[in-house]
Amino acid sequence: MIDTETVTPSAPSFSDWACPLPLRDYPTIVLGHGGGGQLSAELVEHLFLPAFGTADAASLSDSTVLTLPGTRVAYSTDSFVVKPLIFPGGSIGTLAVHGTVNDLAMSGATPLVLSAGFILEEGLPMATLARIVQDMGAAAREAGVRIVTGDTKVVERGKGDGIYINTSGIGVVPAGRDIGPSRVRTGDVVLVSGTIGDHGMAIMSQREGLEFETTITSDSAALHTLVAELLVAAPGTRALRDPTRGGVASSLNEIARASNVGIVVDEEKVPVRGPVRAACELLGLDPFFVANEGKLIAIVPAAEAEAALAAMQAHPLGRDAAIIGAAVETHPGMLVSRTGIGARRVITMQIGEQLPRIC
Amino acid sequence: MIDTETVTPSAPSFSDWACPLPLRDYPTIVLGHGGGGQLSAELVEHLFLPAFGTADAASLSDSTVLTLPGTRVAYSTDSFVVKPLIFPGGSIGTLAVHGTVNDLAMSGATPLVLSAGFILEEGLPMATLARIVQDMGAAAREAGVRIVTGDTKVVERGKGDGIYINTSGIGVVPAGRDIGPSRVRTGDVVLVSGTIGDHGMAIMSQREGLEFETTITSDSAALHTLVAELLVAAPGTRALRDPTRGGVASSLNEIARASNVGIVVDEEKVPVRGPVRAACELLGLDPFFVANEGKLIAIVPAAEAEAALAAMQAHPLGRDAAIIGAAVETHPGMLVSRTGIGARRVITMQIGEQLPRIC
Repeated sequence: MIDTETVTPSAPSFSDWACPLPLRDYPTIVLGHGGGGQLSAELVEHLFLPAFGTADAASLSDSTVLTLPGTRVAYSTDSFVVKPLIFPGGSIGTLAVHGTVNDLAMSGATPLVLSAGFILEEGLPMATLARIVQDMGAAAREAGVRIVTGDTKVVERGKGDGIYINTSGIGVVPAGRDIGPSRVRTGDVVLVSGTIGDHGMAIMSQREGLEFETTITSDSAALHTLVAELLVAAPGTRALRDPTRGGVASSLNEIARASNVGIVVDEEKVPVRGPVRAACELLGLDPFFVANEGKLIAIVPAAEAEAALAAMQAHPLGRDAAIIGAAVETHPGMLVSRTGIGARRVITMQIGEQLPRIC
Repeated sequence: MIDTETVTPSAPSFSDWACPLPLRDYPTIVLGHGGGGQLSAELVEHLFLPAFGTADAASLSDSTVLTLPGTRVAYSTDSFVVKPLIFPGGSIGTLAVHGTVNDLAMSGATPLVLSAGFILEEGLPMATLARIVQDMGAAAREAGVRIVTGDTKVVERGKGDGIYINTSGIGVVPAGRDIGPSRVRTGDVVLVSGTIGDHGMAIMSQREGLEFETTITSDSAALHTLVAELLVAAPGTRALRDPTRGGVASSLNEIARASNVGIVVDEEKVPVRGPVRAACELLGLDPFFVANEGKLIAIVPAAEAEAALAAMQAHPLGRDAAIIGAAVETHPGMLVSRTGIGARRVITMQIGEQLPRIC
């Protein structure tokens, strides 16, 4: 038996995880864990608090009061329904933290606090929940954000799929910082922070049981420190976007429309790992539309492009950064790609879903 | 066909709702509505924005930047999985707004903004979604809060139950205001703002197909204006709690433990509507444990009790307010109820779930 007192916030040990009493009486989630009674309270006390390193149980029930270091804030929410729950490079828990941290970072905000809302399906193994919650806590600590308020509901077997997680987040935006998809001007330069398609193809390879010479690993990562370095080097940065669902194609289409500029991308310059390219060809997918969870698109004034590139390449999460295109006067609102042999194709936003439940 | 331009933020008309193009091509939710592509964008543009009255589509995707009127904030999150989705007195949409507004209000905060995260099940009728989203928009406008950021995911048929909604919220707490469950002292007085058990029994009556002389209606309501009036009359208010899941019994148990005081309640003084009492007896339920969505428990210093009661009774949501008990020195951490014939019983926190999926 693990004494819960020994599970300190700084070092929760779930690798050889055994439920502390009284959780051990319940190897799986039951409806009562969502009832707001003793079982709910024990889940918070014995599982969430040790994993999140949060000070007290009260702060994970109802609301919490905190003092922000500024009044100009970014605010974001995301629900996560990825399948499978655990995959090479991460889990629904890491995604739930990185996804919301990145949404805040794309506003130029410093992410500070997160909320966590769980919808658990009756029968979810307690060990699976522990692994996922541990991943959330570790990702939050690494990103320097705190999970300060939460909620847990339980639905009957067959009315969920193990676990769905919603996170929302608050970050502070410095005065004068104004980054947004409608600020791009003709002549601006488009950069990507690294290889594209890794997350989506990691999930699809798992789901389809594909084997390649090397495992495709999700790029799930928190990008706010990369953004901070970028903004020092390129303070005039116009727009930032993390190309998740819908991929680089959707992000650039949205920016082209919001700014009413054309965007041209050189396909040869867009970094794609070999196994990702192979998996895309096998499944008939276009890497431009595949989800990323640890990459960003930056659009910067031409005069700051080289500095932006150098800053990204100097950061561990931007080593493969590249300049891939530019904003142009022709075809406003449209994304056009130049292929290696000089052909051009229009890349529209996809209608629906290429890869369901990718995040 | 309804021209979407005529659906203004201030007056969305869903009573005779017909899907504007291109939603009309999809009478039900399909996986593509969660794909981050055109279908997702259309759902936001043609359904969420008109209902929420939000300024632009960008603010409901990714993050939004806003300026708060203070740095001391309350922050809360809640997921809603209530079944059925629509019930007498409200819907999952009204609950999703009122629940989070109330969590913020119980910290003494003025609620300002909400996020909305939707997990939709493939096959959900678009008209049902429209009704629920309209309810959210109306509840938010009535409460004076704005839904400023959102997210939509779609899961396959059989992996959800129509719609689950997460809301988080931010409110501002005035300097010096310090309300919390650990601040109660011996001698303080316990008030309830009205009849208890209405929400839970409204849901159960629907689910069980019970018929009474009068329909039992949920009390779902936003309580922050009631709190504001209360705090003017009783500025020394120690603790506030909205007794949702687990009911009045769980709220008072939590406060008794957090403050290490005993709490005694006179059962005869606790207002319960006749049909609610009858339904509880029929189903073998104790009203103390049944969920409320528009009531609050206030614990105030004895010297402010009468003023607090008068202030609540003068507010439309507090007409049936009553003084129901007190904090005592004996049995610290425990809730004890005195029955009409003078007997005493200890009311413990329930272990699990009396009424699954009540909110």
